[in-house]
Amino acid sequence: MPSSFGNALRVTIFGQSHSSAIGCVAEGFPSGFQIDQEELARFMARRAPGRSAWSTPRAEADAVKFLSGLNPTGETCGAPITCVIENTNTRSRDYDELKRVPRPGHADYTAQAKWHGAQDVAGGGHFSGRLTAPLCAAGGIALQMLEERGVRIGAHLAEVAGITDEPFAARRGDIAALAAQFDVLSDGRAFPTLSDEVGTAMRETIEAARSEADSVGGIIECAAYGLPAGIGSPLFDGIESTIARIAFGVPAVKGIEFGAGFEAARLRGSQNNDPYDIAPDGSVVVTKNDAGGNLGGISSGAPVVFRMALKPTPSIGREQTSVDLASGAQAALNIKGRHDPCIAPRAVPVAEAVMALALLDLWLAYPPDPTI
Amino acid sequence: MPSSFGNALRVTIFGQSHSSAIGCVAEGFPSGFQIDQEELARFMARRAPGRSAWSTPRAEADAVKFLSGLNPTGETCGAPITCVIENTNTRSRDYDELKRVPRPGHADYTAQAKWHGAQDVAGGGHFSGRLTAPLCAAGGIALQMLEERGVRIGAHLAEVAGITDEPFAARRGDIAALAAQFDVLSDGRAFPTLSDEVGTAMRETIEAARSEADSVGGIIECAAYGLPAGIGSPLFDGIESTIARIAFGVPAVKGIEFGAGFEAARLRGSQNNDPYDIAPDGSVVVTKNDAGGNLGGISSGAPVVFRMALKPTPSIGREQTSVDLASGAQAALNIKGRHDPCIAPRAVPVAEAVMALALLDLWLAYPPDPTI
Amino acid sequence: MPSSFGNALRVTIFGQSHSSAIGCVAEGFPSGFQIDQEELARFMARRAPGRSAWSTPRAEADAVKFLSGLNPTGETCGAPITCVIENTNTRSRDYDELKRVPRPGHADYTAQAKWHGAQDVAGGGHFSGRLTAPLCAAGGIALQMLEERGVRIGAHLAEVAGITDEPFAARRGDIAALAAQFDVLSDGRAFPTLSDEVGTAMRETIEAARSEADSVGGIIECAAYGLPAGIGSPLFDGIESTIARIAFGVPAVKGIEFGAGFEAARLRGSQNNDPYDIAPDGSVVVTKNDAGGNLGGISSGAPVVFRMALKPTPSIGREQTSVDLASGAQAALNIKGRHDPCIAPRAVPVAEAVMALALLDLWLAYPPDPTI
Amino acid sequence: MPSSFGNALRVTIFGQSHSSAIGCVAEGFPSGFQIDQEELARFMARRAPGRSAWSTPRAEADAVKFLSGLNPTGETCGAPITCVIENTNTRSRDYDELKRVPRPGHADYTAQAKWHGAQDVAGGGHFSGRLTAPLCAAGGIALQMLEERGVRIGAHLAEVAGITDEPFAARRGDIAALAAQFDVLSDGRAFPTLSDEVGTAMRETIEAARSEADSVGGIIECAAYGLPAGIGSPLFDGIESTIARIAFGVPAVKGIEFGAGFEAARLRGSQNNDPYDIAPDGSVVVTKNDAGGNLGGISSGAPVVFRMALKPTPSIGREQTSVDLASGAQAALNIKGRHDPCIAPRAVPVAEAVMALALLDLWLAYPPDPTI
Repeated sequence: MPSSFGNALRVTIFGQSHSSAIGCVAEGFPSGFQIDQEELARFMARRAPGRSAWSTPRAEADAVKFLSGLNPTGETCGAPITCVIENTNTRSRDYDELKRVPRPGHADYTAQAKWHGAQDVAGGGHFSGRLTAPLCAAGGIALQMLEERGVRIGAHLAEVAGITDEPFAARRGDIAALAAQFDVLSDGRAFPTLSDEVGTAMRETIEAARSEADSVGGIIECAAYGLPAGIGSPLFDGIESTIARIAFGVPAVKGIEFGAGFEAARLRGSQNNDPYDIAPDGSVVVTKNDAGGNLGGISSGAPVVFRMALKPTPSIGREQTSVDLASGAQAALNIKGRHDPCIAPRAVPVAEAVMALALLDLWLAYPPDPTI
Repeated sequence: MPSSFGNALRVTIFGQSHSSAIGCVAEGFPSGFQIDQEELARFMARRAPGRSAWSTPRAEADAVKFLSGLNPTGETCGAPITCVIENTNTRSRDYDELKRVPRPGHADYTAQAKWHGAQDVAGGGHFSGRLTAPLCAAGGIALQMLEERGVRIGAHLAEVAGITDEPFAARRGDIAALAAQFDVLSDGRAFPTLSDEVGTAMRETIEAARSEADSVGGIIECAAYGLPAGIGSPLFDGIESTIARIAFGVPAVKGIEFGAGFEAARLRGSQNNDPYDIAPDGSVVVTKNDAGGNLGGISSGAPVVFRMALKPTPSIGREQTSVDLASGAQAALNIKGRHDPCIAPRAVPVAEAVMALALLDLWLAYPPDPTI
Repeated sequence: MPSSFGNALRVTIFGQSHSSAIGCVAEGFPSGFQIDQEELARFMARRAPGRSAWSTPRAEADAVKFLSGLNPTGETCGAPITCVIENTNTRSRDYDELKRVPRPGHADYTAQAKWHGAQDVAGGGHFSGRLTAPLCAAGGIALQMLEERGVRIGAHLAEVAGITDEPFAARRGDIAALAAQFDVLSDGRAFPTLSDEVGTAMRETIEAARSEADSVGGIIECAAYGLPAGIGSPLFDGIESTIARIAFGVPAVKGIEFGAGFEAARLRGSQNNDPYDIAPDGSVVVTKNDAGGNLGGISSGAPVVFRMALKPTPSIGREQTSVDLASGAQAALNIKGRHDPCIAPRAVPVAEAVMALALLDLWLAYPPDPTI
Repeated sequence: MPSSFGNALRVTIFGQSHSSAIGCVAEGFPSGFQIDQEELARFMARRAPGRSAWSTPRAEADAVKFLSGLNPTGETCGAPITCVIENTNTRSRDYDELKRVPRPGHADYTAQAKWHGAQDVAGGGHFSGRLTAPLCAAGGIALQMLEERGVRIGAHLAEVAGITDEPFAARRGDIAALAAQFDVLSDGRAFPTLSDEVGTAMRETIEAARSEADSVGGIIECAAYGLPAGIGSPLFDGIESTIARIAFGVPAVKGIEFGAGFEAARLRGSQNNDPYDIAPDGSVVVTKNDAGGNLGGISSGAPVVFRMALKPTPSIGREQTSVDLASGAQAALNIKGRHDPCIAPRAVPVAEAVMALALLDLWLAYPPDPTI
């Protein structure tokens, strides 16, 4: 089903940009877990719009309301968890023209081809980046549950318009250094880069694009450490397949790579293979981590790491060339509305949510095999 | 389930490298279709080992035997299609050491962590690249069915060790030029590049790696044209999510991108958005195709195009550093066996199979909505 | 997933008896359909509590609120439909003892064994019959969509405490007579039997049980006509498998049979087989319908008909024998709360919802095969 | 997908009556399990045809060949287990007429409506009772795995043509008595009844039907004990939903009931509810078991018990009334072929396979919740 993913757990996302609410049903999450609502609210706030110069001025509180799934003491009770986020700041009048003149880079035309006019076009409808809010609600819960299991997840803005942040130590397999990087990122930082200077440069680039009624894209790097070896499965439910399927459900994602990724295609086997060693505690470790923490779809114990590319926000102020579906002629399009000049900063917690949901699902669905 | 994928159709892959056979069960394929067995055999031959200097000397005929799913006249009958390919050339003795000393870059160690020694380690077991043979059997059938629906699919080796072939015209949205490129590739060509010179250079590079007991990776570009607009679905069953999940089930794939992919992250919105135009026949077309033929997970009518990165074959003749799981000490590893110095050429038809299975599935599962 | 069912459509039920709301997400329903909200409210009212002497005094309006899935003109827009029904009349204090002293016939003890105390026990939590309200919301929409396709569904109370209503003409294959019976049932009838006298006798029996602080069960017969031949599939997604899986998700259902059902086991093949004939319009028909409108899981064009047995409401006023899980000793249990002396009358629309959701799903997922 | 079922494990059945082979792919079964091939062969033999006066004279060895899923020492290796059973005794010529003149009680006509002539009609094709052989192969493995977990499963022929065997002690909740009954059944008994006299009477009835070119149906009772409390899940993946979905995939099954089943509809709550008690070992037990070992879809620790009704074999020697689809006129039909006068005795191990597959799946997918 298009709006669902997961094996042992299943998350179903619902809502349109301008429906009365958006939300998710999250089934299969462990019971007896006390959700830290304040931590969840802080996580949601990292994605929420209207908080900064580089995001859309559409302000939404994005408060998560639980319709079901908790017992009277606030623990998960084993039944499906339903989270709802109200859409308070909707302005349907901004979007009336879009059904007739599809916006380049948006799903307006393909939605028309699929639903023949029945689609809810307001604000991007079911295709809106706003649907990453319930993804973050479910992902925020998964993050807390993984943290209790010893797994920690972080992400940063690795690249915007050619400006690159320092990479995670995950690909070197250096967990201590990676933990220190995560500490930097979680330390109340307003912009999600490891380097402050890089962050400043990126913001200037984004501001420049905005001032020219244009937009820029970006690349997010996300890593997880603490996952034991043996989790996941071969073939189509491996760590990479699972993460990729969810990641491409995030609007604007156009590419994903794990570990050395595309660069691996340019290495020799003797360079790309990660040698094994024995750690002081007797465990098997890799001495570098170009595999991105998994081989054959199963975790190796090294950090899982992926990079995902987001295209520039398709909604831009500049005039664009489209067609008028009513008249069947080319038409100039000028989008008004309210939009992010770069979606990537707000997508950083979304990448963490993707990682968390994929890893928790695989841990529950495909842990190391029990003996009979 | 790890070994299955699909929505309206479901393909289940089974077998290990050295089990008596490998195969697939393909359910949900349209009935009443006469499979062209000779065309299927030719498609299988493009992937089969032992045919060339750049592939493993393990020779396997890879003849597809149908156990079920056809009626007495050879048409698909609506029941699950079961294809079996015998493993004839197995040498289990080559692999006895691997359970104790895991090969870097292979799933030996992660499989041990998951299955505690029960896994079938011979030849890579269930992780073997050999399991792409039944994927190609199912994909070869899907290719024929799509061709009857007007869809044509092709792939080529876009890059090996920094040597790049000319790109498909798919990203320019030029279907006529793309068709001509497909014609070049299907014209009995021994090595899957558009340019003969590039192909020669790639083969020399691969041969150089082999002679140094090493291996190289590669990037495959795959495109499809003829798919009407409106096929696919938003969120997690979109064209990109569906292709990516299957593609990462192919051993050695470490990255995938659609249309402009990672490059899109470096463009401005005004550059990346694909303008619309009206074709002479009145249909809506894009004047370029950086979106890779889909927006919001739904086809636009432009060619679908992806690039996938394959790491260098992890099995190399050079001595590598591993650990002895029995003694708990580092150990030098020298792999004998038979291996491809570059898996990418034989993975070209696999990419076509991935594309075909994803698109046929989405066409059947998520066609343009019927009126009630 | 426990809370979901469906192939081409997927319905996910959420909520607990005393959570802030219950509801469903219904994905895959055809787009462009204008839901008749008044008809839906009438359908919901047939299941709603607090309307009659034979139902629980817990009053709930059961108004369906749509959070998503409709476009601004009120049509289904292709995105998941989310329906929410508020729980307004909750009294958690009634249920505090149940975690310690499980009620016989309820899931209290099995829930404790599964969730170790995290389960939400109030009002039966996720096991409450109240979760049939969102099932009816989704089913009510499916009923309207099927009606537009020419399918009509009805159900009646076939038996309560040995008192039997006249059977549907469905098993005789007499569609005209069945349509007349449906007309009787839909004619504003307060109690869902074909015969008024039988209805009166059943109500007296239920009242007698209530006055003795006891409860009774019942059998519901449900039929559908107008479904063309060729819908469904063999093996595990047949009409019977699909209906049965959903039906046993309805609390209190303990048995289901199709067509002649258990009686078929006592017939000879020459009696049970349904002969074929040619109708005046040239179509193939059966001259009787002991198969219940399907053979090999696929519709025959004759009415689909099933009977499902509901056990007596387990919550009764009489003292019962249970155990105190804290002290580990037998304990007498006296249930207060508010309960139906017979759940079967309110389950009649639930049976229609089950039928509608199963048939619409199969029609969308497994229609007669298209030619390629 | 029609041919698959399961949550944590997935079994996919393939093959047609007269295809070169039938079989199954069984994924998700625990690894490291040594299958007892002789015990599996004995289990298969109980279902195999051609062994007795009351079964079809079509003789098939039904030897199970493993194509994949075992490691070199014969243990399950974690990869999908593929079992193949050859079809050796096929006579397609018997069935040529059936496409034109559908057999009453068979899926011939509904298959024609679905597949328009592409279906494989020979021997019933994909609808043949022969497909219960691979179900038994997978089920036989599940039975062995459950036995190692302390669960024992048995079934008997509870009723044929009004002649009833003594019931299992499962509904009384008497595990010791049930174990003794299982011992009787597994003691090399040629006909699956608890009572020899009843078995003799049933065989005479079956023989009488055969001599009159007719057939009879039957009811099978199946029970399992040793399943701990807390396994399963609410709503649509409960024990009853899971068993029912698989059971209705078995050809000829027309009804199923759990515990008191349809009889529960005629009881009062005070009679039907199962009181709790504390066993000498301190565990919670029921003092009777009208719930059939599960409440709210979750196991209670008491025996799981169901009864399933099978219609009489539709293939009978007597002349029947059908239609000629070519001429569009009524036509008399005389079936030759080879058929069981009563399918129920051979379906007894099939019921055990259904129970075993459902319970193993639920144990793996929905065990008591782990703490986080």
